[in-house]
Amino acid sequence: MSLAETRFDVVGIGNAIVDVVAQADEAFVRENGLVKGAMTLIDEARADELYALMPPGVEMSGGSAANAIAGIASLGGSAGYIGKVRDDQLGDVFRHDIRASGVHFETSPATHGPATARCLIAVTPDAQRTMQTFLGASVDLAPDDVPEELVVSAQITYLEGYLWDRPQAKAAFLRAAELAHGAGRKIALTLSDPFCVERHRAEFVDLVERHVDVLFANEHEAMALYETESFDEALARLRERCDVVALTRSEQGSVVVAGDELHAIAPEPVHVVDSTGAGDLYAAGFLYGLTHGLDLAVCGRVASICAAEVISHYGARPLVRLSELLAAAAIGEQAASEVS
Amino acid sequence: MSLAETRFDVVGIGNAIVDVVAQADEAFVRENGLVKGAMTLIDEARADELYALMPPGVEMSGGSAANAIAGIASLGGSAGYIGKVRDDQLGDVFRHDIRASGVHFETSPATHGPATARCLIAVTPDAQRTMQTFLGASVDLAPDDVPEELVVSAQITYLEGYLWDRPQAKAAFLRAAELAHGAGRKIALTLSDPFCVERHRAEFVDLVERHVDVLFANEHEAMALYETESFDEALARLRERCDVVALTRSEQGSVVVAGDELHAIAPEPVHVVDSTGAGDLYAAGFLYGLTHGLDLAVCGRVASICAAEVISHYGARPLVRLSELLAAAAIGEQAASEVS
Repeated sequence: MSLAETRFDVVGIGNAIVDVVAQADEAFVRENGLVKGAMTLIDEARADELYALMPPGVEMSGGSAANAIAGIASLGGSAGYIGKVRDDQLGDVFRHDIRASGVHFETSPATHGPATARCLIAVTPDAQRTMQTFLGASVDLAPDDVPEELVVSAQITYLEGYLWDRPQAKAAFLRAAELAHGAGRKIALTLSDPFCVERHRAEFVDLVERHVDVLFANEHEAMALYETESFDEALARLRERCDVVALTRSEQGSVVVAGDELHAIAPEPVHVVDSTGAGDLYAAGFLYGLTHGLDLAVCGRVASICAAEVISHYGARPLVRLSELLAAAAIGEQAASEVS
Repeated sequence: MSLAETRFDVVGIGNAIVDVVAQADEAFVRENGLVKGAMTLIDEARADELYALMPPGVEMSGGSAANAIAGIASLGGSAGYIGKVRDDQLGDVFRHDIRASGVHFETSPATHGPATARCLIAVTPDAQRTMQTFLGASVDLAPDDVPEELVVSAQITYLEGYLWDRPQAKAAFLRAAELAHGAGRKIALTLSDPFCVERHRAEFVDLVERHVDVLFANEHEAMALYETESFDEALARLRERCDVVALTRSEQGSVVVAGDELHAIAPEPVHVVDSTGAGDLYAAGFLYGLTHGLDLAVCGRVASICAAEVISHYGARPLVRLSELLAAAAIGEQAASEVS
């Protein structure tokens, strides 16, 4: 990929969300009829009702693409983000945190309408996270919120499948894809969630096959996309359609394919505390590697290192400078020498 | 202490605050002229300015007395809290968390005026916390917010010295002390912070000597109170004035005195991550012990166990059920048998 005339390695577009993270027991998930391990959309009334039942929590900035973009900045990459909050306290928290991570973020907040989006995350003792999202102001993201010069100035524009849940955000998504490809840039997408894939299967197939250069998915999402029981079949379909496909398989690590290349990536050993953000930080590491000229196998290793960091603690953003983890793994030098 | 006709073991009154916790380096503290390890009061403009300079953070409910009261509930005690938030998002977070901890909290939120109080906490790699507090709505706590039936129904009313920073809250404090003593109940106080003691020394001396039955302080606060360089001298003065005095000495543990009794309490071994809440949770454990008829030495041990838990992770409230830690230390049974 050319580095000429780019200002950003990656610009991400997604639902700007503040997470409310609480440790919960299995009974909380069961008794409230939650779908364990999944992301379920809820309205404000249901969010209030569930929040009242939740144990004490911790608020921290989240949002799938935003987590990935914060990760890229933590790796030392140059990154921008586009997403909608409201001009309220949680919106201020979101804006502060992503900027303090070193990310360019200038999307104007909504001045009326629903509050900043919240995701109620119940983390069970098995480290699984069950997410209930009230999309709030994030759905007001519109095509006008996507600045042409920002997308055009990024090597890769990274989009989350969750955007597809609302028409305006979908239009913003498509505008970004057109702008990026028009300027010879690349589009990366994460399928986000198996239920999100099921909600939009036909459109996602079209999207992946026509617009996406770099695809992230876990095995459940990939199989849901093509309604197959076979991981290998999903992989075979996807490798024909996208330049690069990275499929994560939880504790089995991941598989990276690009044309005839195929790399099985081992996961990093880690004690899993909270799996929230695993896929987001995997994408962060991978996209950092891609935009710094690393071999695909090394991209996968960086991705695994980043994912391991984020699942070793509560919350979906890194607690340490990821660039230091890369340096410790002697990957920083390779990145520097390959770019120069 | 009599258990007759009490509904609550402890009711706490304090500044209702949401903490913004960030890992920061020494340079952040130095370059912004912060007083390391202390609590400094700031106005909203300075809070905004400092927040913009802070690394990404995590929001969680705090407030010194509120942390202690949440700890008492986590130990299995019955606890109430009085403190003022605004009707904003962070106020909702505060109310949710303290109620979800099992604490009775009915103070009506302010419907106008400043926002819910925030404390910007920079935690440095040495686990010290440096706190900058914008008191916001918490200072609107007024005598009318202290319900007579609540104070009268508690064995102990626990007050934080920080309340003394505003006239209305001070009046609320004194009303609580009068109500409690009028009903034959006890008043406990924490001196909160050496700078808080210096700001109000003469009044604090009067307060401690006339109104306080159970006093918590660390060695710096105790020495600041009597302007002495000698810990033993401060201890000698205090033991004449209060029924029970618990003085904490960081890694040297604590000293508990009551009349002729004196107990040196060893600290629990722990890897310190963030010292925020150490004094608050010490008070939680001690007050739980006192209101459950435990010997003073055992009260001190419970206090040390609770303090050790909260400094082993980020944030000023326990992450595990403290009652389980007591059970593991075989203290739960003693409490149960002594009460019955």
